[in-house]
Amino acid sequence: MKRTPSVLKILLSDLSEDWVQGNEGPETFSPYDVIGHLIQGEKTDWLDRATRILEYGTAKPFVPFDRFAQFDESKGKSLKQLLDEFEDLRKESLTWLRSLNLTETDLVKKGTHPDLGEVTLKQLLSTWVAHDLTHIAQIGRVMAKQFKEEIGPWIAYFRILNF
Amino acid sequence: MKRTPSVLKILLSDLSEDWVQGNEGPETFSPYDVIGHLIQGEKTDWLDRATRILEYGTAKPFVPFDRFAQFDESKGKSLKQLLDEFEDLRKESLTWLRSLNLTETDLVKKGTHPDLGEVTLKQLLSTWVAHDLTHIAQIGRVMAKQFKEEIGPWIAYFRILNF
Repeated sequence: MKRTPSVLKILLSDLSEDWVQGNEGPETFSPYDVIGHLIQGEKTDWLDRATRILEYGTAKPFVPFDRFAQFDESKGKSLKQLLDEFEDLRKESLTWLRSLNLTETDLVKKGTHPDLGEVTLKQLLSTWVAHDLTHIAQIGRVMAKQFKEEIGPWIAYFRILNF
Repeated sequence: MKRTPSVLKILLSDLSEDWVQGNEGPETFSPYDVIGHLIQGEKTDWLDRATRILEYGTAKPFVPFDRFAQFDESKGKSLKQLLDEFEDLRKESLTWLRSLNLTETDLVKKGTHPDLGEVTLKQLLSTWVAHDLTHIAQIGRVMAKQFKEEIGPWIAYFRILNF
């Protein structure tokens, strides 16, 4: 969790625009879009959901997460700005999370997901970590795909890997 | 290319053993296996193939790459040792690569891949980069999968992402 902003900064800083903006087709994310999406998660999703579980339990369902909000929210911002913003937000999130001094009893508390129904705080926090990792995976895959033409016959090996 | 060792170090340093050794089932790689595999690539594959293209052209086919050599080669080594080793080897590889002062004429030179047939030096170098990125993607995915149980109902969303 703490590592994600640094991993993304090293992977993405000072890359050329077509690498940063390259995606996998309509309605898919470029690396630039992913960072905006992670920012939205910090701002509107993870903390708010954890708070709801702790304060209201299952009584107040989570707000559905807007997976495409970053297409507007990131407008006019450079990738560097987004990477810095995400780094700051994540730092604040983790400071807040530590300040809660969560107990085992807290972790089994439940909330209501608008689609998935009852979920525990522990499941929410695990999903937060898994979500980071799948987006790191996605960025690696999307960046690799930009080489589809350049690798020539080697494409045969990469297809096996869901390329 | 230069960034890969740092990305992997930040992502993997000081993680617990079951995260580092977790894989996706029989004949798949854990993060630990991937670093060993990348080391094998630096030691036996990329440089040797580039050299063959430049020195012998298509006359001397590449040696097939042993994708499972690291299961023996990494034995007894800690992940930290492997990450350091990979960092050093990659640094050497890039110093060597720069020292070649490759021209456009060099980049279109051809070699013989044992399975894929004729390939250019440019395709080899592009594959080297794409190979790094797909293994970063793989590590993110494999690490995320360790949360399969913990995320509870959220698994429904992750399945969509080839989880």
